[in-house]
Amino acid sequence: MSKAVPQSVTQLIEAFSRLPGVGPKTASRLTYYLLRAPDEMTQTLAAALVDLKTKTRYCSVCFNITEDDPCPICADSGRDATQVVVVEEPLDVLAVERTGAYQGRYHVLHGAISPVEGIGPEDLKIRELVERVQKEGVLEVIVATNPGMEGDATAMYLQRQLAPTGVKTTRLARGLPTGGDLEYVDSITLLRALQGRHEI
Amino acid sequence: MSKAVPQSVTQLIEAFSRLPGVGPKTASRLTYYLLRAPDEMTQTLAAALVDLKTKTRYCSVCFNITEDDPCPICADSGRDATQVVVVEEPLDVLAVERTGAYQGRYHVLHGAISPVEGIGPEDLKIRELVERVQKEGVLEVIVATNPGMEGDATAMYLQRQLAPTGVKTTRLARGLPTGGDLEYVDSITLLRALQGRHEI
Repeated sequence: MSKAVPQSVTQLIEAFSRLPGVGPKTASRLTYYLLRAPDEMTQTLAAALVDLKTKTRYCSVCFNITEDDPCPICADSGRDATQVVVVEEPLDVLAVERTGAYQGRYHVLHGAISPVEGIGPEDLKIRELVERVQKEGVLEVIVATNPGMEGDATAMYLQRQLAPTGVKTTRLARGLPTGGDLEYVDSITLLRALQGRHEI
Repeated sequence: MSKAVPQSVTQLIEAFSRLPGVGPKTASRLTYYLLRAPDEMTQTLAAALVDLKTKTRYCSVCFNITEDDPCPICADSGRDATQVVVVEEPLDVLAVERTGAYQGRYHVLHGAISPVEGIGPEDLKIRELVERVQKEGVLEVIVATNPGMEGDATAMYLQRQLAPTGVKTTRLARGLPTGGDLEYVDSITLLRALQGRHEI
């Protein structure tokens, strides 16, 4: 950039630009916004960034992001240890928690099997899941990987790995999203809804 | 949020959410992205934020953001001190610099007159501009405030304040944006283009 821009401004623009979905224009807009905003706002953001990396780790039981090990959900004796929802990412735990309808535990794989991206089963927390099922008296593993090709492949692989343990393995239902409009639903979703139809 | 989310994660999501144009969803996405990204990326961003506030100040001549006072443009004897482009924000300096066609100096007002937002002339660097014109032998002030109601009001106010100094005061041309399509141009822009028509 030209010398109209001080180095510390350029540096922050570049740092923001490296975030996903943040282009150079958004990055400058954020930077110049912070220049005018109260110092406290920038300090809070900088401190939160440092805390994120220094205070968090993976739970040694479920591999969710946590500050304490085991995480609050694994440590909560009020939660049913016989049910485990398996998700790809920590954000997915949040999504299931928001339903307010689940009182069991979780297991975070940290990804899905993807030959294209070179991610194999050994890169995910699958071995740890199988061990957990064998040791902890889990009765049902609810596979909640994403409803796409990679999530489905991961679910199938999990089902095969878990079969010898005798645990019940289930997968989230597929069908029409609530509030959706039939006209705008893609044909694969509609096909799955048709295949999964049930009597009313 | 639920206890599935550690406090340090929540804090960063909240800090990101306070940025303009960043909603809660984008804020979580950025936060969970940084959790997985190399530590170095988060550290760079945090350090750049701290530097932004500790290393930058306003140039005492033109009020642009700078690390050195006077700023590199004001300190550059190769730039024409008789011409001053007046802009609302530091980002506008960058925009003019990018044309590569301007070799004069700048003056940053840090806003525009806006009765709605309670911003009056005394909140802007207008008095400093008039003093600068009187002292520094400026021959032309090019008013490059934004082409809207507030920018126009500010331009008119500046013209009145500068009139007693005898300096030539000009305003950027208004008309059709290059590469635009007449069909999609708003009627006010088209009106200004019509009013500003010239012989070819």
